[in-house]
Amino acid sequence: MLEKIDLTKKLDKNEYKKRMPQLEAQLGRLQRECKELNIPIMIAFEGYDAAGKGLQLGELIHALDPRGFQVHAVKKETEEEAMRPFMWRFWTKLPAKGRIALYDSSWYRKVLIDRFDQKMKDKDTQSAYQSIRAFEQQLTDGGMLMIKLFLDIDQKEQKKRFKKLLDSKETAWRVTPQDLARNKEYDRYTAINEEMLQETDTDYAPWTIIEANDRRFATVKIYTTVVNAMAEQVKKAKKPLENKSKIIPLVADPYLETSTLSKVDLSLSYTREEYKERLEKLQSKMEKLHGELYRKRIPVVLGFEGWDAGGKGGAIKRLTEKMDSRGYVVNPTASPNDIERAHHYLWRFWKNMPKAGHVAIFDRTWYGRVMVERIEGFCTTEEWQRAYKEINDMEKDLTDAGAIVIKFWMQIDKDEQARRFKERQQNPDKQWKITDEDWRNREKWDQYEAAVNEMLIRTSTPKAPWVVVEGNDKYYARIKVLETVVEAIEARLK
Amino acid sequence: MLEKIDLTKKLDKNEYKKRMPQLEAQLGRLQRECKELNIPIMIAFEGYDAAGKGLQLGELIHALDPRGFQVHAVKKETEEEAMRPFMWRFWTKLPAKGRIALYDSSWYRKVLIDRFDQKMKDKDTQSAYQSIRAFEQQLTDGGMLMIKLFLDIDQKEQKKRFKKLLDSKETAWRVTPQDLARNKEYDRYTAINEEMLQETDTDYAPWTIIEANDRRFATVKIYTTVVNAMAEQVKKAKKPLENKSKIIPLVADPYLETSTLSKVDLSLSYTREEYKERLEKLQSKMEKLHGELYRKRIPVVLGFEGWDAGGKGGAIKRLTEKMDSRGYVVNPTASPNDIERAHHYLWRFWKNMPKAGHVAIFDRTWYGRVMVERIEGFCTTEEWQRAYKEINDMEKDLTDAGAIVIKFWMQIDKDEQARRFKERQQNPDKQWKITDEDWRNREKWDQYEAAVNEMLIRTSTPKAPWVVVEGNDKYYARIKVLETVVEAIEARLK
Repeated sequence: MLEKIDLTKKLDKNEYKKRMPQLEAQLGRLQRECKELNIPIMIAFEGYDAAGKGLQLGELIHALDPRGFQVHAVKKETEEEAMRPFMWRFWTKLPAKGRIALYDSSWYRKVLIDRFDQKMKDKDTQSAYQSIRAFEQQLTDGGMLMIKLFLDIDQKEQKKRFKKLLDSKETAWRVTPQDLARNKEYDRYTAINEEMLQETDTDYAPWTIIEANDRRFATVKIYTTVVNAMAEQVKKAKKPLENKSKIIPLVADPYLETSTLSKVDLSLSYTREEYKERLEKLQSKMEKLHGELYRKRIPVVLGFEGWDAGGKGGAIKRLTEKMDSRGYVVNPTASPNDIERAHHYLWRFWKNMPKAGHVAIFDRTWYGRVMVERIEGFCTTEEWQRAYKEINDMEKDLTDAGAIVIKFWMQIDKDEQARRFKERQQNPDKQWKITDEDWRNREKWDQYEAAVNEMLIRTSTPKAPWVVVEGNDKYYARIKVLETVVEAIEARLK
Repeated sequence: MLEKIDLTKKLDKNEYKKRMPQLEAQLGRLQRECKELNIPIMIAFEGYDAAGKGLQLGELIHALDPRGFQVHAVKKETEEEAMRPFMWRFWTKLPAKGRIALYDSSWYRKVLIDRFDQKMKDKDTQSAYQSIRAFEQQLTDGGMLMIKLFLDIDQKEQKKRFKKLLDSKETAWRVTPQDLARNKEYDRYTAINEEMLQETDTDYAPWTIIEANDRRFATVKIYTTVVNAMAEQVKKAKKPLENKSKIIPLVADPYLETSTLSKVDLSLSYTREEYKERLEKLQSKMEKLHGELYRKRIPVVLGFEGWDAGGKGGAIKRLTEKMDSRGYVVNPTASPNDIERAHHYLWRFWKNMPKAGHVAIFDRTWYGRVMVERIEGFCTTEEWQRAYKEINDMEKDLTDAGAIVIKFWMQIDKDEQARRFKERQQNPDKQWKITDEDWRNREKWDQYEAAVNEMLIRTSTPKAPWVVVEGNDKYYARIKVLETVVEAIEARLK
């Protein structure tokens, strides 16, 4: 989830001053409502050292009635705690109904810091994840609202903050040698965090990533997340049968939204000569690697999604041009037919998964569930919310079986799409490519963009990543797709 | 789950002839209803070799309209299948909505036979369990009815059946060397089955154990299980909001019920001399072992449940008499107080879990959830059905942390209870022990017995077993408790 996060997010002072009084008032009111409705709440602050967990927790409780909450600072286990199962200390620190417990670092400590320190075996880590999931499921099944915040800062920012702390006598003691070790090995620690997020991002207790390089931004996003989650839970408590969904929606707010797409540099391009030269090289590499894949029995799954007229077809064509046609299949995905509709939505994709040594390319994919089906209401809210985990589980089955899995998002901007639509309409050979539906979808651009941003974050995993392709220039896009596939195969064969 | 199964169950011919026509008619009718309601159904037949999986599957489809079902015999993977993720072959064999798929051996093959053949690493086994749970959850979330049957026969019966098959030329080919190996190492194979049952007995796809030593009994129990499950699903499909529970209730039928309690030999007893002699020996052993536990930092959790006046108090007293009082705590469990009621039902038990080297004894336990709370309606059906898994998860956290966990059920019969109640009423020193509630509970004896039987099966695990104590003779009961604890500690210290 972290690799898709945009840490340049900032909030200007005026916007901050405008929003905070409102948020504080809302939070206070919701605390009272939750108390009356007997809703217990747990808020966990996790994330990088010096990301501001303690500070942000302090900001949040400003708006709370102090008689209704308790803060737990989770440090190294005490002797008493070390002598019991590792979840014991959290079971004994649960909030009662109607109360709020806040955790400065939490039950995830064991699978993060202890793992970094290599105190955990693989088998124990798996079993710890299972205990954590059971803990969270049991509590949320019992009516707990569980809010999990992950404060994200980059290596450079972290180093800067440590330096500032070390420079002053009063604060130097706060930076431990372990903190510095984790900064030095930021990438290794990040891989541990990524795995943890993937293993424990569930529909009953989802993670919210907080971009924390900018303090004001983080505060407002945390307040907004907590307020939204509490408002949802209150709604559910009042009408339990109609409101079964548990997920906390990503903050839908142009200021706060975690947007991957808005950061894409669409000016990237190649000249025709550059394109030709690269294309030839990459295609002949691809031809050779395809044979290698076959001999080494490695399956490959490539998914293509993107805006209408985003260039999926062209990219797939260039990718496969020199490949042995017996070794790959392109699966186009249209609306499901009657037989497909009579099965689980993943069934038709499972059926077409490649065997070892083969390449399966999907032109549109199982991600339809969290895009078109979500937006057009072809499935229930509960269903698309559950789908992130279902899709991650499916892709994990594929990568566990040795597959290379890559998903491409072909990104273009709205103007470029308009240009391509018109071109298609005017060109008799391309008119079949453009339908009324394309124009209708275009009207819902903003809704799609929000859904795509959420999808990219929740389903980009280290082993099955999303690759966003800068698509305004077709040459650039095609080369990037080919390059990405070639590099992934080369990395595997090494 | 298997250790509590009573394989002496039989059904006489008349009862069989009386029941079958009814069940067949019901099954046919329900198949039509499920078709109309678009309910897809998967029925998996697992269990020991020669337990009659194929034969019973054949019996079941007699009553089905052949246009509405398909049978899949799951053998070793084909070459095509081996080249894909292991769940692929099952994803491609899903029934469409309104149809039934039957599996003669199933997606569990990998975690049973492959494991027995030591083709799987521990880590891969864990990951296979996770894939299986994800598969079953995704499908049942999508409206699938999943019925999982485990056909249980004992080692002797299995050997007899193999012999019979081998004696005839026409059938000898059906017995493979692998079958015979699994019979020879029946205990090792059983441990693998036990773990599998524990890891995959969920509220959305629970296991039903079929006692299969007697063929007629097995047929009727399978029909009854399938009919009940389909009827439940039909009810749910018609009123989705009111019927959210997914578990298939154990067959509540005096003929078919899986009863552990009815098999207990309550005539077991000791004379006063035998008792005195054993008691003294065991208590001094216990005293020594208690010190050892402390030095080795092993925590011990002992739960006591049983009928009112079943002898819990007396047994606990004899157990602890010679133990160092600083090293154990007896936690009595009454109705929850206000603070306890404001928390998750497991919270008050977690709080009292022992630290390493200490012994925690619970006089009544967390199992109240699936007994008194279930029967008196203090929790919802969904809540107590979910509790089996929740309790197993909690006990797994304890045993993972190194604890010895044993649960005792103090069994007496109804006459003995009446005798003890009266004695208590007549003895001024014991009158406080007997209340009106005890008499009220006694009236619900049959309901409690059914709940206890289900509890014993669903929550007796190899690492946290239930021990049923024959309690009509108090001497016998006390010695058995002491003996069990002493042996468990000795086994651990070895």
